Amino acid sequence: MRIIDTHNLENIAMGAAVLGTGGGGDPFVGKMMAKAAIEKYGPVTLLSPDEIGDEDWVVSAALGGAPSVLIEKIPSGSEVIGAFDAIRAYSKKNIKAIVPSEVGGVNSIVPLMLGAMTGIPVVDIDGMGRAFPEAQMVTFHLAGLQSAPMSMADEKGNTLIINGSDSIWNERISRAALIAMGGSVMFCDFLMQGRDLKAAGIHHTLTLAEKIGETVHGLRHRNENPIAAMVDVLGGKMLFEGKINNLLRRTSGGFTRGEVYFDGINLYQGKQAKIAFQNEFLLAEVDGQVAVTTPDLIAILDLETGFPITTEALRYGNRVAIIAMPCDAKWRTEKGIQTAGPRYFGYGIDYTPLTV
Amino acid sequence: MRIIDTHNLENIAMGAAVLGTGGGGDPFVGKMMAKAAIEKYGPVTLLSPDEIGDEDWVVSAALGGAPSVLIEKIPSGSEVIGAFDAIRAYSKKNIKAIVPSEVGGVNSIVPLMLGAMTGIPVVDIDGMGRAFPEAQMVTFHLAGLQSAPMSMADEKGNTLIINGSDSIWNERISRAALIAMGGSVMFCDFLMQGRDLKAAGIHHTLTLAEKIGETVHGLRHRNENPIAAMVDVLGGKMLFEGKINNLLRRTSGGFTRGEVYFDGINLYQGKQAKIAFQNEFLLAEVDGQVAVTTPDLIAILDLETGFPITTEALRYGNRVAIIAMPCDAKWRTEKGIQTAGPRYFGYGIDYTPLTV
Repeated sequence: MRIIDTHNLENIAMGAAVLGTGGGGDPFVGKMMAKAAIEKYGPVTLLSPDEIGDEDWVVSAALGGAPSVLIEKIPSGSEVIGAFDAIRAYSKKNIKAIVPSEVGGVNSIVPLMLGAMTGIPVVDIDGMGRAFPEAQMVTFHLAGLQSAPMSMADEKGNTLIINGSDSIWNERISRAALIAMGGSVMFCDFLMQGRDLKAAGIHHTLTLAEKIGETVHGLRHRNENPIAAMVDVLGGKMLFEGKINNLLRRTSGGFTRGEVYFDGINLYQGKQAKIAFQNEFLLAEVDGQVAVTTPDLIAILDLETGFPITTEALRYGNRVAIIAMPCDAKWRTEKGIQTAGPRYFGYGIDYTPLTV
Repeated sequence: MRIIDTHNLENIAMGAAVLGTGGGGDPFVGKMMAKAAIEKYGPVTLLSPDEIGDEDWVVSAALGGAPSVLIEKIPSGSEVIGAFDAIRAYSKKNIKAIVPSEVGGVNSIVPLMLGAMTGIPVVDIDGMGRAFPEAQMVTFHLAGLQSAPMSMADEKGNTLIINGSDSIWNERISRAALIAMGGSVMFCDFLMQGRDLKAAGIHHTLTLAEKIGETVHGLRHRNENPIAAMVDVLGGKMLFEGKINNLLRRTSGGFTRGEVYFDGINLYQGKQAKIAFQNEFLLAEVDGQVAVTTPDLIAILDLETGFPITTEALRYGNRVAIIAMPCDAKWRTEKGIQTAGPRYFGYGIDYTPLTV
């Protein structure tokens, strides 16, 4: 158990944006939101996984929608508490802790903001170990837990409770409602007990994000190659260095979709790379050959600073490093690949596990 | 208080399809659904408006969606009870009666089906005195009542509770969810007490539908002009006799939209007519001049039989009479015209009350 303060938040938001693989929200937005909440409501307690009781009720929380909308429609806070109040009132459970659905610059932070607002602790676990675009793409689903009842809320005071016949239907119905509600809303789902959370979730990812964030922020003060330091802390693999020469990005179906193209620089001079994304970076190719696919992680880092660049922040001319990291072993199962592998997203290729 | 049997159902479904102004569902589908429910669960009690207590809780019920979908996706019954169970469990109210949201060949009948399934009586009131495409287009809304909490259910076992910030948001969010759920779902909304229902609703419309249905069915046995008899029972006005020479019909945004064109016959030889629809017939023109607009009622009747023809049953070559009827006075108010007048539907004209 430890107290999260503004300094921790800054590192968590930054590191989570690296693990968010382009999605999960902009770290600056995430940090500002939580900072305002902590100043207003007081600090948040972070529980290590073994500090949550087997019988205790826990709910997962995240903002959902297109990152390109989220960056212009900063959450007000009323939707964050609105979704939580809706699921608590509906379920009548004594909710003892909050857990992030995913890791991301906003979505690692929003549960901490909710924790500050409610005085309820947050558990150092999440449901992805990265970010993914759809609500059933969590290890809670892989373990057979149900996302229903799912609550949604927006800043206009609209709330919903969805009891879909399965987690795929919850995603489908909530995505349609999300678009009607403006493209970015707060979700609470996977109401579960501590024993299920501990078995199904990915542990210590807030702490991992914080450690990565400390590294990123430390780079400015040390005289070393920022990308080499990041590859090291991430346990990742260097894939490419390049300059963005083309970017196709559109908001459709409640997602930000597109492709980004790179001309190689430095050691990669003369080579080409491409990354396809749907909120998150899902597929990286180098010279037309598939190099990494979802569910393994792809991060784009600024070559000078090592800062992560999220999907909505990509710009023509950015000079970047592309880093790949292996996903959690829970994703490398048959159900994991069915749920979030390349074929689910319509890429007609099999998943080949990344080796580092 | 009286018991509704299969004979009553047949007349209610037919007469309600006339008042449904093209929407509210096919009367044959409605009759078959309720007949099966009554055979399985027993008869339904219809309460006259003065038989519902001021303090008693009542909920309105309807199928929503595009008529062109409903005709191919006949409700199974599980969604009908699903939406009711969801709102009852959520609200914890002891619901004493069910009221139809609108009048229509299916939507006057579905509440009776639900009454048979639950043993709860139905009140001889509805919220439109006709059919309309959107959920807030009810006299309950005109009276300032709220549609939230609104429940929705489909035949796949998906249920939702929507607490929109107002009745317009409930419509907008539920319409998006409805499309994701397959285009036709069951709704319960406007949970209210008897005194509000009696003040805000339109009385005796199931009985009126039954009387109209008796007339339609009686036409086959009498040697009189069916259309003249219908104009008489409807208190309506003869507008046109013609043959359908063109029909543009599409399903979009969860609605069936389009226009139908007529060449005049008999007394109307040499004239042209056109009706625009969104689930319901909303605007009728004769020789390019606006003749009737929503919220007044437009019915299309088969010239030989007097049977109503609903939006999804319109066919090239149909020989029909177009009849107009004044709407209830509750619609002829400023809020009534704002809610369901021609400008709401994008027709750039003012409402001129039909005189008979």
